[in-house]
Amino acid sequence: MKKNKQKVVRPKPINPKGFRDYFHFFSKKRSSLIKEICEVFELYGFENLETPAIENLDALGKYLPDIDRPNQGVFSWKDDESNWLALRYDLTAPLARAYAQYSNELPLPYRRFSWGPVWRNEKPGPGRYRQFYQCDADTVGSHSVVSDAEMCIMLSTIIEKIGFKKDEYILNLNNRKILNGILETAGIGNINDNYINSTQSDMVLRSIDKIDRLGLEGVKDLLGAGRKDESGDFTTGANLNEEQINHIIQFISINNDTNSKTLQLLQTLVGNSIVGKQGIDELQQILEFSEYAGFSEDSIRVNPGTVRGLGYYTGPVFEVELTEKIQNEDGIFTEIGSVAGGGRYDGLVKRFTGKVIPATGFSLGIDRLLYVFNQIKSKEEKYEAGPIIVTIMEKDKIKAYQQIVNDLRNAGIKSELYLGNPKDLGRQLKYADKRRSRFALIMGSEELKKDVIQVKDLELGAKISRQIKTHEEWKHQPAQVEIKRDKLIEYIMKLPK
Amino acid sequence: MKKNKQKVVRPKPINPKGFRDYFHFFSKKRSSLIKEICEVFELYGFENLETPAIENLDALGKYLPDIDRPNQGVFSWKDDESNWLALRYDLTAPLARAYAQYSNELPLPYRRFSWGPVWRNEKPGPGRYRQFYQCDADTVGSHSVVSDAEMCIMLSTIIEKIGFKKDEYILNLNNRKILNGILETAGIGNINDNYINSTQSDMVLRSIDKIDRLGLEGVKDLLGAGRKDESGDFTTGANLNEEQINHIIQFISINNDTNSKTLQLLQTLVGNSIVGKQGIDELQQILEFSEYAGFSEDSIRVNPGTVRGLGYYTGPVFEVELTEKIQNEDGIFTEIGSVAGGGRYDGLVKRFTGKVIPATGFSLGIDRLLYVFNQIKSKEEKYEAGPIIVTIMEKDKIKAYQQIVNDLRNAGIKSELYLGNPKDLGRQLKYADKRRSRFALIMGSEELKKDVIQVKDLELGAKISRQIKTHEEWKHQPAQVEIKRDKLIEYIMKLPK
Repeated sequence: MKKNKQKVVRPKPINPKGFRDYFHFFSKKRSSLIKEICEVFELYGFENLETPAIENLDALGKYLPDIDRPNQGVFSWKDDESNWLALRYDLTAPLARAYAQYSNELPLPYRRFSWGPVWRNEKPGPGRYRQFYQCDADTVGSHSVVSDAEMCIMLSTIIEKIGFKKDEYILNLNNRKILNGILETAGIGNINDNYINSTQSDMVLRSIDKIDRLGLEGVKDLLGAGRKDESGDFTTGANLNEEQINHIIQFISINNDTNSKTLQLLQTLVGNSIVGKQGIDELQQILEFSEYAGFSEDSIRVNPGTVRGLGYYTGPVFEVELTEKIQNEDGIFTEIGSVAGGGRYDGLVKRFTGKVIPATGFSLGIDRLLYVFNQIKSKEEKYEAGPIIVTIMEKDKIKAYQQIVNDLRNAGIKSELYLGNPKDLGRQLKYADKRRSRFALIMGSEELKKDVIQVKDLELGAKISRQIKTHEEWKHQPAQVEIKRDKLIEYIMKLPK
Repeated sequence: MKKNKQKVVRPKPINPKGFRDYFHFFSKKRSSLIKEICEVFELYGFENLETPAIENLDALGKYLPDIDRPNQGVFSWKDDESNWLALRYDLTAPLARAYAQYSNELPLPYRRFSWGPVWRNEKPGPGRYRQFYQCDADTVGSHSVVSDAEMCIMLSTIIEKIGFKKDEYILNLNNRKILNGILETAGIGNINDNYINSTQSDMVLRSIDKIDRLGLEGVKDLLGAGRKDESGDFTTGANLNEEQINHIIQFISINNDTNSKTLQLLQTLVGNSIVGKQGIDELQQILEFSEYAGFSEDSIRVNPGTVRGLGYYTGPVFEVELTEKIQNEDGIFTEIGSVAGGGRYDGLVKRFTGKVIPATGFSLGIDRLLYVFNQIKSKEEKYEAGPIIVTIMEKDKIKAYQQIVNDLRNAGIKSELYLGNPKDLGRQLKYADKRRSRFALIMGSEELKKDVIQVKDLELGAKISRQIKTHEEWKHQPAQVEIKRDKLIEYIMKLPK
């Protein structure tokens, strides 16, 4: 009898498009980065809130607040009871939901921080993944500009704490109210306060936000009739007249050494607009508080080009830009750009309760920061040493080897017994190399008899092997040292780290 | 003209069913718990791997490995290109995928740990959520029973490190091979090694796994013709004959003080079965290694009733059970049961590569542990003190108040300026209470003139207010102390924590 030979269909062992795995260095560095950041949050009186990854779709808002891509951007599906569920795309929308849910019990103002992965159902690109980590702090329920100032101070403090010097970053500061003032004096009318909107003023906002990518000329086209891109696609413009366009271009072209000069120019541009003046006054206060906390205009700079795409901001907005260039995978030096940003948004909780609740906060892009650390750190810094590997020379003496591992671990020394097939020493030492172990411990029958251990320094060994030529030299190389069994821990502990 | 009054439909601010938010104590405790656990993993030579939350559905396996519920249990959806994506339901399936994906580059054995949330599309119940945290360690590529022993030792070490004493937990140890031997001697045939299967031996496994819930009689029914539950639903049984049933019941009824007695009895029951003897020999070795590492049979106990439901185990299996009872929300003392478990599974990577790759590991249920900590800790331990609140008495002196906050933070003291509406002191002190702050700082016009600060001890104040009756007493109560502005930091630093 013949058996039917069915072809086995095996799943492919790959990540879905736009997702990736993170190995030891990355995930450990991420954890330590998040820890450092959260310590500052706590020092500033913020408390942790962890919301689940999954929310009701309508609670999130059906769309990403990025007005360029409505109707997409979110991973969502129907559950067994036909409710639409979705993965959070940021940490702000869940905060608004949670605040509305617990507002009776929470202190007011409510100061919370959150961190974790968020998901975007977007086309992945180089360095753009569909899961990435954010770390947020927000104050809900405070109208005071002091809370906006606190955000700028806290963010700058964090950026310096995690390792950037004063000349390596700038916090760009602007105020939606000034922009509203400019639009008012240009006769374009106020930006409305809806969460998602698509008025002329929004189109102006969106156009300005593209300045980094399209330059002044591109923005000009978008403020006017529209713009054809390289592919031939045409984007409809905001249809402003020449005078209006010039007014706005003047605004975003402001580029001064000093904040006071910038504010002076802005004063002229907003003219008699009350909201515009208010916006300038708020920035002035933020700058004073920041100066007071040790952040001068070297760190915090008024920049009218900073609008931030999200439609929901209603007051001060800010973005931290790293000024260093870093080498990408192809060795080309590129700008890092923005690693964090935020601002005041007074309309987000209103979606649930109908009541305007003031809020201000920011989000740090953890994976962007990780990428930066990965690119600027040398290879040695990046990989911490692996565990000490205790090799197996005599298979029937495994308990003796395991006891060495027990002793090392009890002394807090990272170590393990080689658990693969111990058929030869070479294979075991290769494994130790792959683990980036600094030492391998060897105990053959002779060593067991003499109660000694050969401590092989793999790092030193690798160095020596590049320099030593003769067998005679090899034999006397110092990369292997014989240590009495009962002196082992002491010996390892004394070695330079 | 009348405006159309449209009814605004507002989303409800609630979590989807089966999901919950975690506030400060919980999420911080979870982070510190995970940190403590991962430190042990690293000490033992394991390295971190973080896989994304989303996997290709076919890579996960379409089903949860729980054979009771095929075809459900996973959150999955089709992406824009019609690929099925899914949220991981554990950390083992993604490990198998990742190992198959990177096997050429990874060291062999590959020792990795992972932690993070997993998701189950299951009916939520009291204390059962659809998102929960796991913390896993696995060794892939080692046949050696030493790696199984290492898992038991490492798990016991972790349980003790996170705060449980030797008499507060038991690691129940068993071996699928012994069970196979029992089935063999009972003439039931080997359990096949497929990932998902539904043979008679599987039904036996499943029946045994229900002993905690159904008792010996219930298991007996399931091993025989079947069982009708309270609701009248009938579960088909494994249809074993009387002799077979007795053989198995004898096996799972073994309950001895000493491991050696249990192993002796098992020896009798497996008779001449080679696989059964091998299973017993492996347990003997695990016990020896554990004893050697300081874990006697008080901690690690051979328990034939421990089978673990998952069909994919192929060798030693184990489960940590906390032996204390804890009070649930209704004040009733209940068993905690299993908080961690694992075993050897040699077939999981095979799904991708066709090659059997040995693997062994375990998973800690972080949220179950958190629940235990939450229930056994007193209220005081649970809530750490909030930040020092600097109150606002004179609205035009905010910079002076903010400077106090700056000074406190620079000294590493958690603090904040009150950022709500500062219309009266009472409201500010209420806020401080809600934040569980120990101190509020008060500086009115008089204090500002004299350059002093009133330090109000809120904890002490609350205590005193329960005891003091007259106004005169109030005035002289020591819960408020006047401190020179430039002695503030020194004063706070000296206070008992």
